[in-house]
Parts: sequence; structure tokens; C-alpha cells
Amino acid sequence: MTLDDLTQRLRDFAAARDWEPFHTPKNLTMALSGEVGELIALFQWLTPEESAAWRTDPAREFNVEDEIADVTLYLLRLADVLGIDLIAAANAKVDRNEKRFPPLPR
Amino acid sequence: MTLDDLTQRLRDFAAARDWEPFHTPKNLTMALSGEVGELIALFQWLTPEESAAWRTDPAREFNVEDEIADVTLYLLRLADVLGIDLIAAANAKVDRNEKRFPPLPR
Amino acid sequence: MTLDDLTQRLRDFAAARDWEPFHTPKNLTMALSGEVGELIALFQWLTPEESAAWRTDPAREFNVEDEIADVTLYLLRLADVLGIDLIAAANAKVDRNEKRFPPLPR
Amino acid sequence: MTLDDLTQRLRDFAAARDWEPFHTPKNLTMALSGEVGELIALFQWLTPEESAAWRTDPAREFNVEDEIADVTLYLLRLADVLGIDLIAAANAKVDRNEKRFPPLPR
Repeated sequence: MTLDDLTQRLRDFAAARDWEPFHTPKNLTMALSGEVGELIALFQWLTPEESAAWRTDPAREFNVEDEIADVTLYLLRLADVLGIDLIAAANAKVDRNEKRFPPLPR
Repeated sequence: MTLDDLTQRLRDFAAARDWEPFHTPKNLTMALSGEVGELIALFQWLTPEESAAWRTDPAREFNVEDEIADVTLYLLRLADVLGIDLIAAANAKVDRNEKRFPPLPR
Repeated sequence: MTLDDLTQRLRDFAAARDWEPFHTPKNLTMALSGEVGELIALFQWLTPEESAAWRTDPAREFNVEDEIADVTLYLLRLADVLGIDLIAAANAKVDRNEKRFPPLPR
Repeated sequence: MTLDDLTQRLRDFAAARDWEPFHTPKNLTMALSGEVGELIALFQWLTPEESAAWRTDPAREFNVEDEIADVTLYLLRLADVLGIDLIAAANAKVDRNEKRFPPLPR
């Protein structure tokens, strides 16, 4: 399954439920924000070190995978509705970041 | 460029700047949240209809692509640090959603 | 009950549960962000017009009041931990906004 | 200046700029979320300990006060538009939390 396959699956999913009218860019940024809020809540009381050991708690493990999945789904759906190629846009941004933040001399 | 290539590029980018110690799951969820905040701000005063016509303003067009790229970069970096396969996790979530939200009868 | 009374109540609440070590500015901004995510989720699929008629659904009515309360509690707790007088800071910001956004001529 | 005075000031501010039509609950939750995103970004790379020492950097000090002010302003404006008494709602929530999280025995 590629990113494009998953995007198509989400498009079909929305169509089969008549959800397309709800999936405006405005609404989808809100949905994305809500899911990121659920993800951040899973780490809020952990120290940075504890957050790196997140797999030690099985319930947390499921929840983190579940919430990061939701974030991914809304991000893909938003990009599809916006007509943006996420990989190309992200790659172009790394190009700009390379110039903005030069690597350390070695 | 695939998702895996981009993930590797971000890994190299962080290593070349000694940023890895900052890239804990906790910190990266915060960075993700901050970027989603910048994205949502671009749509906050638009009607849903105006949000769908976002490409009519060239400055907004650049900013939306720039911010959604930042969201993507932090999401990929977070998934890499967590050791989560985003496509697999997202696909498994759609499987669960198929059961939770049955399609409309046609 | 004033804002200061409520702030004191939250201070006592945290102390009675030994939660103070968790209430760093970093953690509290995450908690605030998580609660705002829950609040935004209540409005994500509504049109702006429907969002203005939010009291027509009793379940939503309770949820909106509950979530905005959570946002308020974490904001007050964060301000207390930071040692910031919220009213003074907000008022100073409106002063700056008055200069940045002149009123319309009437 | 009380919370009610500040709320009234924001009401007048919006009216003097014809911003009221933009200030729907939906839009204001987005604006609130965007400002929380800017606040969280100020703490994302800090350790919890560094976040507690946030006043050691004068630029950060100004930015934190500025962003928490923005969060406060949008929260007050949202509560006003929703017709919610923030102090009463927050206080009622602490009542519920008292039952949900009993204090430690001493």
C-alpha cells in the first residue's frame, strides 16, 4: 500500500458515506488539530525520557499508534482536498531548510 | 522520492545538525502541534467556501503549502523516532473505521 | 469567586494531589493544547452558522461548557506557574492591538 | 480591570472594526488553537527544567507573555460569543474534578 493508495482509499471512504461536503479545507484543518490534541495528551505528563520509552505501557502503545494514525488520515485527506502532493511539498521544504540551517562543520 | 526516502532524508538532516537529542517523542508532538497551529491560522477567518478556493490568493497558496509541508515533516520525523510505520498504522485504522462507520446503503 | 480565587483553588488542588512536579510550563502548554483540541473537535463539522446555534443540542451544550472550562483551568494554572498576571498581560496586548489595527472611521 | 471589563473591551474592539461577523464560535476556536500553537512552539525544544526558567531569556520572556495574552483574548472573546461565564464554568469543573480525583490522604 502506497501513500497514493491510502489517499484513494480515504476518498472512497468519504464518498461511500456522503461525507464530502463536510471535508472542506477549513473543517479538515480543525479535525487534524483535534487529533493532534489527542496525540499530545498522551505525552503531556511524561518526561522527555519517559516519552522515548512509550512502548513500555501496552495501553499507551495502542493509543499512540491509534492517534498518530488519525493524524495521518486527516493530513492525507486534507492534502487530497487541497490538491497538494505532500511528498513533493515536504521535500521542497527540506530544500529550503538546508539553506536556512546549514549543517555543522565536521 | 518515497515516504521512506523522505524519512531517511530527515534522519540525516537531524544528524548533520546534532538535533537528535531534541527529537524526543514529547518534543516532536509539540513541534507538530505548533505547525498545525500555523496551518489552522491560515483558514480561521475564511468561510468553508472561501477555504475551498484557497488558491485564489498567491500568498496564501505559498503559505498553505509551506505549513502543510512542516506538518508532514514533523509527523514523519515523529513516526521515525517512535518506530511506527505510518502507512500500516493508518491503513489499520481505516479497517477499524470501516466497521465503526458502515457505508450508506445504495 | 474571582480569577485570583480560582487560581488559588487550582494551586491547592495540585498541592493536595502532589501534582506540582508535573506542572512545568512545558507540560501545562501541552495540556492546554490537548484541551483546545477537544474543544475544536466539537465545532469541526459545523458550519459557522451552526456553530453559533450550538445550544440547540443539549449534549453539545454540556460538552462545550466542559471543554472550555478545561481550557480555562489549564490556562490559569499555566499563568500561575509562569507568574504572569493574565488580565494585565491581555490588557497590554489590546493596547498594542489598538495601534496595530486602527478602528474604522465612522 | 476585571475579567468583565476586559470582555467588554474586546467586544468594543471587534465592533469598532466590523469584525463581529468573523467572530463565530467555529472561527474563534480556530484562532484560539492557532495562538496555543504559537505558545507551545516557545517551549517545544526546552527541557521541563529549562521551561521553568523561561524568564532567563528576555526575548522569550516577551514572547511568552505576548502569546499567553493572545490565548487569553481569544478565550474571553469565545466565551463572550458563546454566552458562557468562564469563572462559573471553570469552578463547576473543579467541583467535578474534586470527586473524580480524590486528594491524597495526609
